[in-house]
Amino acid sequence: MMNYQFSPVLNRLMEHFGRLPGIGPKTAQRLAFYMLKQPRDRVQDFADALTEAKDRVVECPICHNLTDESPCVFCRDETRDTGLICVVEEVQDLLSIERVRDYRGAYHVLHGAISPMEGKDPGDLRIQELLNRLAATRVREVILATDPDVEGETTALYLSRLIRPMGIRVTRIAHGIPVGSNLEHADTATLSQAMQGRREMD
Amino acid sequence: MMNYQFSPVLNRLMEHFGRLPGIGPKTAQRLAFYMLKQPRDRVQDFADALTEAKDRVVECPICHNLTDESPCVFCRDETRDTGLICVVEEVQDLLSIERVRDYRGAYHVLHGAISPMEGKDPGDLRIQELLNRLAATRVREVILATDPDVEGETTALYLSRLIRPMGIRVTRIAHGIPVGSNLEHADTATLSQAMQGRREMD
Repeated sequence: MMNYQFSPVLNRLMEHFGRLPGIGPKTAQRLAFYMLKQPRDRVQDFADALTEAKDRVVECPICHNLTDESPCVFCRDETRDTGLICVVEEVQDLLSIERVRDYRGAYHVLHGAISPMEGKDPGDLRIQELLNRLAATRVREVILATDPDVEGETTALYLSRLIRPMGIRVTRIAHGIPVGSNLEHADTATLSQAMQGRREMD
Repeated sequence: MMNYQFSPVLNRLMEHFGRLPGIGPKTAQRLAFYMLKQPRDRVQDFADALTEAKDRVVECPICHNLTDESPCVFCRDETRDTGLICVVEEVQDLLSIERVRDYRGAYHVLHGAISPMEGKDPGDLRIQELLNRLAATRVREVILATDPDVEGETTALYLSRLIRPMGIRVTRIAHGIPVGSNLEHADTATLSQAMQGRREMD
């Protein structure tokens, strides 16, 4: 965007903001100037938050949610029903379901969906970890809450075929969620309906 | 946005992103997860860029542009015409003019505009610094390039009344129909300005 080195230090900050998804060069410039006007303490705290998040946030060894304590807050919670596992693509999806406040089971985060187009194979997801978990613990139902798009449906079908032979009930969240959109942006009422209306996988 | 402390470390990063202008809670969440997926080096470099910008970027003592060298790149440039000063509200405005590549004079950054609504008085801007500069150096023209809104016009009028008695030519950037747009969609105020500011055809 800049044709000259007006301020290398400021340019470097603009470049970092500009590399964030959805942030164009004009917005990056605005954010950099905004940060300069903030108190020193707040800028330092933002910088520390970045490196601390990178250093301290890890995957939960049980459900693969992102957490800074191991196991994560959901896996540590003894009031939750560990016989019920809700499988989601991303941590954001888990957070969306959690906001509905009526699901009290456990989770499993795949960190993606099967996508031949993007070169995402089952081996790139936390699928083996899910199978190991199902083999090691007593689970009566797995709810497949992957997105209702091609990748999510493919992943759900793939998982269903692996899990049903283990004698575990496999359900899919209902298509209350508009097909083609994604779970992260669903409103809580729709999401609640989708959870309640779940059906047996064919 | 979050009703529980799912990960204090991650929440803190989301909060920092969420406090940036124009970034809502959903975007802040997405940016935080995005950063976690980046290489450690890049996250560290972003963090360093934040604190370094805050620590090293200062106002140029001459034109009040933001810079990490003092005086700034424009005030150091001996090929520029120091007898001509373009007054802008913000550093971003200076950068916009600089991108046009045909202005070769000096600048003066006010760091805002007079706004009784926002409690911005002339004393909050770099106006006294501009007057001192005009008194100390030989300047033949001051171009007022503040925004064409109420605050910008008020500021231009205020500056004009202070500078003209010093025997210096004071001009205002032209208002009119933006190049490439069409007359049909111009608002009446712009169209009125464009008519009044009409010039002889070459």
